Amino acid sequence: MKAFASDNYSGVHPEVMDALMRANKDHAGAYGNDEYTTRATQKFKDIFGNDIEVFFVYNGTGANVLGLNALTQSFHAILCSEFAHINVDESTAPEKFTGCRLVPVSSQHGKIYPDKIENRIQRLGDQHHPQAKVISISQATEYATVYTLDEIKAISSLAKKHNLYLHMDGSRIANAAVYLNQEFAAFTRDAGVDVLSFGGTKNGMMFGEAVIFFKPELAQSFSYQRKQAMQLHSKTRFIAAQFEALLSNDLWKRNAQHTNAMATLLAKAVSDIKGVTITQPVQANGVFAVLPKNIIIHTLQQDQFFYVWNEALSEVRWMCSWDTTEEEVKQFAARLRKLVSII
Amino acid sequence: MKAFASDNYSGVHPEVMDALMRANKDHAGAYGNDEYTTRATQKFKDIFGNDIEVFFVYNGTGANVLGLNALTQSFHAILCSEFAHINVDESTAPEKFTGCRLVPVSSQHGKIYPDKIENRIQRLGDQHHPQAKVISISQATEYATVYTLDEIKAISSLAKKHNLYLHMDGSRIANAAVYLNQEFAAFTRDAGVDVLSFGGTKNGMMFGEAVIFFKPELAQSFSYQRKQAMQLHSKTRFIAAQFEALLSNDLWKRNAQHTNAMATLLAKAVSDIKGVTITQPVQANGVFAVLPKNIIIHTLQQDQFFYVWNEALSEVRWMCSWDTTEEEVKQFAARLRKLVSII
Amino acid sequence: MKAFASDNYSGVHPEVMDALMRANKDHAGAYGNDEYTTRATQKFKDIFGNDIEVFFVYNGTGANVLGLNALTQSFHAILCSEFAHINVDESTAPEKFTGCRLVPVSSQHGKIYPDKIENRIQRLGDQHHPQAKVISISQATEYATVYTLDEIKAISSLAKKHNLYLHMDGSRIANAAVYLNQEFAAFTRDAGVDVLSFGGTKNGMMFGEAVIFFKPELAQSFSYQRKQAMQLHSKTRFIAAQFEALLSNDLWKRNAQHTNAMATLLAKAVSDIKGVTITQPVQANGVFAVLPKNIIIHTLQQDQFFYVWNEALSEVRWMCSWDTTEEEVKQFAARLRKLVSII
Amino acid sequence: MKAFASDNYSGVHPEVMDALMRANKDHAGAYGNDEYTTRATQKFKDIFGNDIEVFFVYNGTGANVLGLNALTQSFHAILCSEFAHINVDESTAPEKFTGCRLVPVSSQHGKIYPDKIENRIQRLGDQHHPQAKVISISQATEYATVYTLDEIKAISSLAKKHNLYLHMDGSRIANAAVYLNQEFAAFTRDAGVDVLSFGGTKNGMMFGEAVIFFKPELAQSFSYQRKQAMQLHSKTRFIAAQFEALLSNDLWKRNAQHTNAMATLLAKAVSDIKGVTITQPVQANGVFAVLPKNIIIHTLQQDQFFYVWNEALSEVRWMCSWDTTEEEVKQFAARLRKLVSII
Repeated sequence: MKAFASDNYSGVHPEVMDALMRANKDHAGAYGNDEYTTRATQKFKDIFGNDIEVFFVYNGTGANVLGLNALTQSFHAILCSEFAHINVDESTAPEKFTGCRLVPVSSQHGKIYPDKIENRIQRLGDQHHPQAKVISISQATEYATVYTLDEIKAISSLAKKHNLYLHMDGSRIANAAVYLNQEFAAFTRDAGVDVLSFGGTKNGMMFGEAVIFFKPELAQSFSYQRKQAMQLHSKTRFIAAQFEALLSNDLWKRNAQHTNAMATLLAKAVSDIKGVTITQPVQANGVFAVLPKNIIIHTLQQDQFFYVWNEALSEVRWMCSWDTTEEEVKQFAARLRKLVSII
Repeated sequence: MKAFASDNYSGVHPEVMDALMRANKDHAGAYGNDEYTTRATQKFKDIFGNDIEVFFVYNGTGANVLGLNALTQSFHAILCSEFAHINVDESTAPEKFTGCRLVPVSSQHGKIYPDKIENRIQRLGDQHHPQAKVISISQATEYATVYTLDEIKAISSLAKKHNLYLHMDGSRIANAAVYLNQEFAAFTRDAGVDVLSFGGTKNGMMFGEAVIFFKPELAQSFSYQRKQAMQLHSKTRFIAAQFEALLSNDLWKRNAQHTNAMATLLAKAVSDIKGVTITQPVQANGVFAVLPKNIIIHTLQQDQFFYVWNEALSEVRWMCSWDTTEEEVKQFAARLRKLVSII
Repeated sequence: MKAFASDNYSGVHPEVMDALMRANKDHAGAYGNDEYTTRATQKFKDIFGNDIEVFFVYNGTGANVLGLNALTQSFHAILCSEFAHINVDESTAPEKFTGCRLVPVSSQHGKIYPDKIENRIQRLGDQHHPQAKVISISQATEYATVYTLDEIKAISSLAKKHNLYLHMDGSRIANAAVYLNQEFAAFTRDAGVDVLSFGGTKNGMMFGEAVIFFKPELAQSFSYQRKQAMQLHSKTRFIAAQFEALLSNDLWKRNAQHTNAMATLLAKAVSDIKGVTITQPVQANGVFAVLPKNIIIHTLQQDQFFYVWNEALSEVRWMCSWDTTEEEVKQFAARLRKLVSII
Repeated sequence: MKAFASDNYSGVHPEVMDALMRANKDHAGAYGNDEYTTRATQKFKDIFGNDIEVFFVYNGTGANVLGLNALTQSFHAILCSEFAHINVDESTAPEKFTGCRLVPVSSQHGKIYPDKIENRIQRLGDQHHPQAKVISISQATEYATVYTLDEIKAISSLAKKHNLYLHMDGSRIANAAVYLNQEFAAFTRDAGVDVLSFGGTKNGMMFGEAVIFFKPELAQSFSYQRKQAMQLHSKTRFIAAQFEALLSNDLWKRNAQHTNAMATLLAKAVSDIKGVTITQPVQANGVFAVLPKNIIIHTLQQDQFFYVWNEALSEVRWMCSWDTTEEEVKQFAARLRKLVSII
């Protein structure tokens, strides 16, 4: 039975798997010297413009840490939401690889805003204090909420004001694009983002993410840094072929539309259950809710695992995946409804 | 046309691809909490004994650097062949992640020997000098040669004498096992190896390597270190399933037997060409040769790329892969023979 | 005219300078192999017991970072006050050298308490999250307040409960000892501290701090780590001789008593000035106050520089040094009183 | 009795000690905001030109590592003599702080030459291999030999050819200047050096070295990097005052002339002792010699310690200091002569 644990519990979308099989013939140059990489890169250029740099890496932590590393020296500070994946779920990879300080900013529904961010930009020019250099935002956020274009532009204006860079963790960027009903470029490069982690794994790929630089000069040393960070795949064609599939025939969009719809459906299906409170706006592919009793959480988890997001609040997280079905959502809601009624 | 450039130019073996497809159903726990990981781990335990620790990572550099990192503190030194992959082809990943010094040891046919190694174990106990802590050997070596059991045991004796660890880069371990006609355990844990990088990608996998600890206490912090090093895959089942396939029905052996045989065939086919000199013993899946003229190298490379290994010597490297065919070997040798005759 | 800017604006106490001159004869072994180091080390053992390890380093940041480094691996987290020197005034030296995350804990008057600390000990055993391993407290704090013995013991109990270490930044430890009227050992090793930065520079030395391990096994690699961290002085005798002087004839105590008394005098002298509010308990050698108008701050700073500690609150910091005189304190208070009356 | 162990066994020159005492009055701004720092910096500008950047640090390892760090990214390689201090006597500080690879170049009498250096500049532009970025030379060398102007210019030409920087470890730069009878600028900035570690401790100071940038743009982040590297002294005036003394009234030159002369005297005094062979040209303040029997070495060391430089060759190192007297040299030579005659 499928879980609502995480979008990385799901497998690989059939169209992606087909692309992997098609790519599996003959020899191909290693380390990105292959036609698949050329074509997948072009797919990204079709989306974002030709004047970008695209690099494939293994995973989201690699994409984030390497993107941030390209923007910083080791005495810098990186500002992000207190709930940012880089701040809570990537061990100390950011510190270890970049040497930088992470500065958490308090957030609302996972999103950070200019006033709170600016409060944490402190003592610029003072050699004793970590120097703020990057603002990193997640789109969609770890609370499955989505920044509006205006919100992103306000942050990028703040970044420019203080000579900072803007980084976006887009491990669920497709879900954000679908929710906003906007082109990718509109809320990334056109909104002032400098470097983007473009997610693949959570949207139906087997492995692989992309780091995209909207200012090519920032990427001058990236190939060396990626190798040094152990994120260069020898058989790169097998990452590239997946991205080519994801960016063809709107597969990324179909997947994201489905997962977002499933989350909306789930939220609706549980919203009138007594004692169940949806805690965050349901915008991308996740639902956060407070359940009335911990025993209900534990019982429900036994068949279909999901994460308790905030122990103190009894807040749980349910994530939908590209392969979540309407039937599964309904059954899950029904189980919850039944549990609430009998416990 | 297939190249003799590297065993990572090849694709994925059909049995591995089948395993990937079979693993692609339903949801599975992320980060190794899945049945595929359990089964693949057991496959390794069947080979090496139950008292080992097995971790899956993305690539060979990750496996090597993380294995070495588990054995060292940052003031240590790691001794290896001057031609070791960690010394010449992994950028400064070892230094960046471990902080350690790499100390190159001069080698014969890519293999290092106790006398030369011991010469580089210097000033133990002196706080001013990097402290030797690990000897790292490649099996098979970067020259496609293979250490004998006695050679490995002699090195592990030296390691024990000075309280050092022995690490093995086994990115081509299957080729070594086939050449030696020995069980994996015989020339690894039984010969005194402490930590092993067990290669998958070069033997027919799409991605993924394993780090194997023969002393579990050395692995106590490894899961944290792997995460921090950006080498933990969310959908780990897709690495595990590949290893399960590789270790089932002797696929690893069939692949390695074939690639070794192709190298032997190639060496034989070119050995009597005038001006062509085989420079290294042909033991695993590579052939190293000096060609009479650089123009011959360049012409030959145009259709089927391969690496010039040593520019100064005009020494080239030809690597065979699991998918190299007898026909391709013969055609390649014939092309070379013809080129030599006309240039 | 002397400033109230920092206790590192002061020079070297005459008895320390005499010791430097006496030590300046003949040759002495480098890197700590000298009689001065032996004698100064014994002075520390007389204070803390013979079963300790003592290491001399250049400065406070070096002492803190190296002490923390000895207690951690790079995936660990270090909990400290949001105002801790390691968190606000040591650039990203902690992250760069240890790789660890700093986790700021909210404080009262610069002191942190078990409940708030425990809230930040999260997800132990979870490979994705930095693992809390050290609690670091400053004694006296950056707000010149002093932890009581009970407060320290409560924190060390919490540390033990979660298998964490307790580190103390004692750059102003003499001031704390005088305020508490306790032996050094009572509020350090006897209260559960594992590693101590023992300050010298701010209490009348020219340069030099000591790192003291109460569990010698934690110091096994320290000499290598100190060298690697560029904190090993060749002419170590000149640090040791200063510490010998500081720990002889109660010089440390006389200095600290004087500076604490000067701070108390200053607080008293300004406390009744209209619009001046003392914001922190005056315990060690600093006075924190809110002044009525920024123009008063700027005017006062022009002759005798001091730091605005909190711009938002117009809170200033006045630090007394071993060479601050009663007359200077009175004149400073008088100047402030006059400025307030006329502006 | 004074030793011939190292120039860091000596104490502080009286004129330097006087300067320390004179600087010890009143308050001074911390972290270099003081008049002593301004004056000492100007002394360096008088020597090298006003368009330089000067930074004071604690020790030679700090100066070297920070200078190299300013020139590199972590995927770079630093080429130096196999005997360079950074390669043999600074633990893994270079790797730990810069992340870079050290590439040892074989040397003659401690000096490296363009042909051997160029051989180690390999695979530029290849992401898999550490990228050569800096050549570091020691002046005087660890063998107390001195590069001529032409030798340095040849190395800087090579550096420019490959877009590398040239770093000089000048921990004994005064000895080199005296030997060459040249202005400092002639064999540093005018010869193509980019960054210089200017030594103080070994020439009569208590502590402190300077890092000098001849291209100010390379120093843009240095103040942050120095703080982060724990090399920023709070009471900087006490480093600056020493340098001011060293660079006044030719103290640096008088000291170096004396130490060089003592080495020459020592070499002469032992050169005709049977079985004693001077192994390196005696140019700066050290004498290297092979002694006939190890028992002679051990006996001689007991009263006046010195280092065996090369165990295999029974080669010893005798270093002279600013305080070495003619009488001591003669007595030492006489002791050796006697030992040789009776053993």
